[in-house]
Amino acid sequence: MSHNSFGHLFRITTWGESHGPAIGCVIDGCPPRLALSEADIQPFLDRRRPGQSRFTTQRQEPDQVRILSGVFEGMTTGTPIALQIDNVDQRSRDYGEIAAKFRPGHADLTYELKYGIRDYRGGGRSSARETAMRVAAGAIARRVLGAGVRIRGALVQLGPHRIDRTRWDWDAVDANPFFCPDPVAAAEWEEILLAVRRAGSSVGAVIEVVADGVPPGLGAPVYAKLDADLAGALMSINAVKGVEIGDGFAAASLSGEDNADELRMADGIVAFGSNHAGGILGGISSGQPVVARFAVKPTSSILAPRRTVDRDGRETEIATKGRHDPCVGIRAVPVGEAMVACVLADHLLRQRAQNPDAPEVARLPRN
Amino acid sequence: MSHNSFGHLFRITTWGESHGPAIGCVIDGCPPRLALSEADIQPFLDRRRPGQSRFTTQRQEPDQVRILSGVFEGMTTGTPIALQIDNVDQRSRDYGEIAAKFRPGHADLTYELKYGIRDYRGGGRSSARETAMRVAAGAIARRVLGAGVRIRGALVQLGPHRIDRTRWDWDAVDANPFFCPDPVAAAEWEEILLAVRRAGSSVGAVIEVVADGVPPGLGAPVYAKLDADLAGALMSINAVKGVEIGDGFAAASLSGEDNADELRMADGIVAFGSNHAGGILGGISSGQPVVARFAVKPTSSILAPRRTVDRDGRETEIATKGRHDPCVGIRAVPVGEAMVACVLADHLLRQRAQNPDAPEVARLPRN
Amino acid sequence: MSHNSFGHLFRITTWGESHGPAIGCVIDGCPPRLALSEADIQPFLDRRRPGQSRFTTQRQEPDQVRILSGVFEGMTTGTPIALQIDNVDQRSRDYGEIAAKFRPGHADLTYELKYGIRDYRGGGRSSARETAMRVAAGAIARRVLGAGVRIRGALVQLGPHRIDRTRWDWDAVDANPFFCPDPVAAAEWEEILLAVRRAGSSVGAVIEVVADGVPPGLGAPVYAKLDADLAGALMSINAVKGVEIGDGFAAASLSGEDNADELRMADGIVAFGSNHAGGILGGISSGQPVVARFAVKPTSSILAPRRTVDRDGRETEIATKGRHDPCVGIRAVPVGEAMVACVLADHLLRQRAQNPDAPEVARLPRN
Amino acid sequence: MSHNSFGHLFRITTWGESHGPAIGCVIDGCPPRLALSEADIQPFLDRRRPGQSRFTTQRQEPDQVRILSGVFEGMTTGTPIALQIDNVDQRSRDYGEIAAKFRPGHADLTYELKYGIRDYRGGGRSSARETAMRVAAGAIARRVLGAGVRIRGALVQLGPHRIDRTRWDWDAVDANPFFCPDPVAAAEWEEILLAVRRAGSSVGAVIEVVADGVPPGLGAPVYAKLDADLAGALMSINAVKGVEIGDGFAAASLSGEDNADELRMADGIVAFGSNHAGGILGGISSGQPVVARFAVKPTSSILAPRRTVDRDGRETEIATKGRHDPCVGIRAVPVGEAMVACVLADHLLRQRAQNPDAPEVARLPRN
Repeated sequence: MSHNSFGHLFRITTWGESHGPAIGCVIDGCPPRLALSEADIQPFLDRRRPGQSRFTTQRQEPDQVRILSGVFEGMTTGTPIALQIDNVDQRSRDYGEIAAKFRPGHADLTYELKYGIRDYRGGGRSSARETAMRVAAGAIARRVLGAGVRIRGALVQLGPHRIDRTRWDWDAVDANPFFCPDPVAAAEWEEILLAVRRAGSSVGAVIEVVADGVPPGLGAPVYAKLDADLAGALMSINAVKGVEIGDGFAAASLSGEDNADELRMADGIVAFGSNHAGGILGGISSGQPVVARFAVKPTSSILAPRRTVDRDGRETEIATKGRHDPCVGIRAVPVGEAMVACVLADHLLRQRAQNPDAPEVARLPRN
Repeated sequence: MSHNSFGHLFRITTWGESHGPAIGCVIDGCPPRLALSEADIQPFLDRRRPGQSRFTTQRQEPDQVRILSGVFEGMTTGTPIALQIDNVDQRSRDYGEIAAKFRPGHADLTYELKYGIRDYRGGGRSSARETAMRVAAGAIARRVLGAGVRIRGALVQLGPHRIDRTRWDWDAVDANPFFCPDPVAAAEWEEILLAVRRAGSSVGAVIEVVADGVPPGLGAPVYAKLDADLAGALMSINAVKGVEIGDGFAAASLSGEDNADELRMADGIVAFGSNHAGGILGGISSGQPVVARFAVKPTSSILAPRRTVDRDGRETEIATKGRHDPCVGIRAVPVGEAMVACVLADHLLRQRAQNPDAPEVARLPRN
Repeated sequence: MSHNSFGHLFRITTWGESHGPAIGCVIDGCPPRLALSEADIQPFLDRRRPGQSRFTTQRQEPDQVRILSGVFEGMTTGTPIALQIDNVDQRSRDYGEIAAKFRPGHADLTYELKYGIRDYRGGGRSSARETAMRVAAGAIARRVLGAGVRIRGALVQLGPHRIDRTRWDWDAVDANPFFCPDPVAAAEWEEILLAVRRAGSSVGAVIEVVADGVPPGLGAPVYAKLDADLAGALMSINAVKGVEIGDGFAAASLSGEDNADELRMADGIVAFGSNHAGGILGGISSGQPVVARFAVKPTSSILAPRRTVDRDGRETEIATKGRHDPCVGIRAVPVGEAMVACVLADHLLRQRAQNPDAPEVARLPRN
Repeated sequence: MSHNSFGHLFRITTWGESHGPAIGCVIDGCPPRLALSEADIQPFLDRRRPGQSRFTTQRQEPDQVRILSGVFEGMTTGTPIALQIDNVDQRSRDYGEIAAKFRPGHADLTYELKYGIRDYRGGGRSSARETAMRVAAGAIARRVLGAGVRIRGALVQLGPHRIDRTRWDWDAVDANPFFCPDPVAAAEWEEILLAVRRAGSSVGAVIEVVADGVPPGLGAPVYAKLDADLAGALMSINAVKGVEIGDGFAAASLSGEDNADELRMADGIVAFGSNHAGGILGGISSGQPVVARFAVKPTSSILAPRRTVDRDGRETEIATKGRHDPCVGIRAVPVGEAMVACVLADHLLRQRAQNPDAPEVARLPRN
């Protein structure tokens, strides 16, 4: 993970700013002879695309992806896959105010202090538009993982409002504008979020991503732990402030007895009585579902004026105008899925390199 | 971050198993002409060392560090610094049971599935002994950061019991066996943890690390975000299940107005009205204190027998015998500090490379 | 250096095939606030461009570069710079023969064995078109190095014909179609190479690149030696079979006395009596000109039929048709310059990170 | 390749100075369940060990290697392998002169300019002692490659004196003190090198390394070319000034017809009529023997006084005293073999990751 690249063997490098001509990414290390076309990527982009409900920014971006290299006659070739999306709706407006002032909660100030220059139009490089390329890369990562691995995300908390987990229904996720697995909560959230939006305010969210069918053995004992890479990957998404694996912070309150995931056998495969660990033991996947959760802060762009300073070090105020998501956490759901897919694909290739004869399921005896 | 290395320009590689002859690490990229001797490292190791109170394992390890390279006449030379600690108390015992059975919550099963072999003695490579080398590396990272950066950790939750943050006193941290900043809580925890230990049970914990004096501009906009690297670093510590920056998961419940850290000026330096962000905006340090928190699960080694399976795939039971920490989270405090120090040192060098003229404090105007 | 990326802190990732829609690269880690526009890059591309003399391929590619990100209001921003060149002259032809048969000396066979698939049109990813992006990246690397560092290349051998080094004239280099610094040799080579071309044959070449003004201290003692990175960089250029630093292979025939570059002082700066070392001692630049040389094999595409095999493992023959350079070494001159520039820029940033107070010239005493 | 590490998936990090307490290395990424003990490594170290003939330095170092981690019950475990060799013969002497003056041809000056400090005792980190760890790592790399890959090196030129390649006899290599494959040349070289040594002078050498049995498909098309990594690896060896693959610089003088390695079939395997390419096409191994050659400059330490400067920038003279190799190229033979082994092992793991179903020999049709 170095500046604008992510992953080691399945390696993603993204580029582009919110209001530049295009955004793009290069995926290096993808195995050859996987069937791939734009049509395999576009549905994932469409899930993340803005302007699809009243609850996301009204910027109109078709987010039409083009594959510029690395695919030949419908198959990956093993050489770098370049993806590109043209920016279409860089609405012309006056950026004078955000060029001169730093919006609280945004990266404006820190860019200025780090680089001494910033492309302030629409947040430049720190815009959430960059996450479109993560989603595109994630679609290819899923190809690498194969059909046996299924990665699904859901919004489990909107502002302070949590879902009722007993009502969890994966089919509900795509049936509401929140990716919410609890249909009752989803209905309640409509009103809540409309009120937030009308008030020009914003709320945060918590997203859960579950990966089923992950083979055991992915990860490594110390710094390349699977959970460490997942944590870095999810924390690298815009506005994320916390990451958990399995029970996460709640594990701190458990006793050792309650936290232990007991083992048993089922058809020669190791099974577990519970999954407090979130599918990862000692940094290595166990064959159980991998469960990760991350918290997104409320959108920093709000209508209420806030105290700030300008580039010359003078105190002033700023209020955000323009198009914004009242809850950026919603569109973070497909992004979180994509990052989990990319981490798993990278570790799958790493595992193959060092342990080509490892079993694909938790079968014992090992040999 | 690749397998057993951590960091890019301040790069740490550790090696060694719990019951091998020694553990060690190599630090590559350290700047030259920093005063350094074993005496600069040992005090940090002593804070993490086992056997110092009734609340940590009774394994007796002096953890005496030796510098084998990279230092000449009391100064770093810019070449790799090799550190080594001999394992002294590899108590002779019968490892037959843990060689054959997988302890729930431990890495035993996943090592077996990944590698088909494991050094089961004392947990081998997955033993918390490895963290001694992190602490040693952290001591050198502090040298790289200089005296202006102060990194301190504290236990803010033991099992379900949280401190009262209004009583926070950094001086209290080293005055109790828990690194607890709340003297009242610390007193209560003594009884609580003794009871846990007597019951052969265990509890988890939450640790908070605060870094003061961090210059603005560390980190990068997308994948090399400072918070992403901190998340990966802290999640890579044994038994950690969650990581937060600033308000963390609590930020999800705030409104945009409440979460905004307003800006003002103080003596030509940007100041903030609050620090919900934990000192990081858009992946880049702002000059505010960097605040990270991580959750440690309860020690998996407990006296109560638990259902498990053996290497041949037969169902059985196991109960842990031998020396253990009733709360591994306690000794994770100096480890967490060390990981934060290593991440900051790495990013300081990266920042110098790309932005050598960036200001050391958040001074405006920038030029 | 990993698959399709090059460099660590000034990091280049290229993508694209000969007959795909475009080729491109992403440059990550470039310092901010360097003046940059397409006009700064295009002249270097024009030097490498095909179709400019009778001695290079007649493929007509304007090689018009576009900057798609990382530059704002004429200045680099510190975020990734994406460059792109559309492929214009993907002449329509029948690729049936090279799809089915492996051309000797080309990568056809090894791609097939490695990936089981290849984009055979014009060589796909192994086409020398990829080197256009190296040249573009090199133009930006020169900006990072600043005006004090001058990097120039020259063809010093065409086939078996060497220049007379006593006639070396840098001004001659751009006055003939060979980048030859010896005007007399250049005149002779015209006839020689025309004959080669008429015969449908090809010849190799040797290129020398000299970097003046390189500050001392770039490189590192062991694996990140400056000469090691130069060697890897130059050997990564298509068709290169050998690399030398300073006297190179000739140094093996010298005595220790003759090879020693004696030191003396000139105005407080260390000067040298000779430069057998090519400006690098112990892997680190000394302040002398850095001198590297590389050998390019004869173009593998020739008219004479050669024995080969097809994808089904049947013996057959193949003769190359179509557009080719009779000496690919000629256009390798600007590519070699670019790779040297990229290596030096990368090491300049690395040096700044670890040794920010190192002197820019070989001034003694150091402090 | 970053500072003191080498390789990506089979990753080596070395540490230690000539006159420190020890030297060592950490090998990360080695596959598990390879039989390994010190006895598998020691014979390779013994070949490189000083003090074995009149033609190498008389420093007496047993170079006894110890494995400190990563091996359990005689098998690798997949965790980092730490190797260590104690320095025994750090002969006590006066280093005042080389502390104050810079020896021409050595790294003294460039270390001073880069770091402002250096461990001058015996060359410190730039001593050829570091290469012992390369040889040790190479022994393990051979295990990764398996018995089917045979890597052998030979001295093919001593000073200006080349072997007669028609007399090449691999069995002769270990029957003379020069690793010379031409028994006639070896006999002549005895007198030549004795005279050089008596004169206090030195000579250079050229070494050839041949790897048989390398599977096709190792390497990658652009920056991770197998030959690029070999070039970097070999150039990183102390005193190396040139690297060639296959015909190397001689290829520049060939016509395309003469340079073409024609293909044919032999038992369903692709065979070649010649091996000008040195076993690598387009950066990827072809299944032919991989052939690399490198030039070593004459030892810089000579008895004849040479002009130099001191740390204060005053002109002076220096003559080397003490123990030296009259031709450091001799002991570079096992080091060159080791580097080739390490590069191949790294690329074997990389190939497995991306192309797990690639054939182990050049068999057609591929599927």
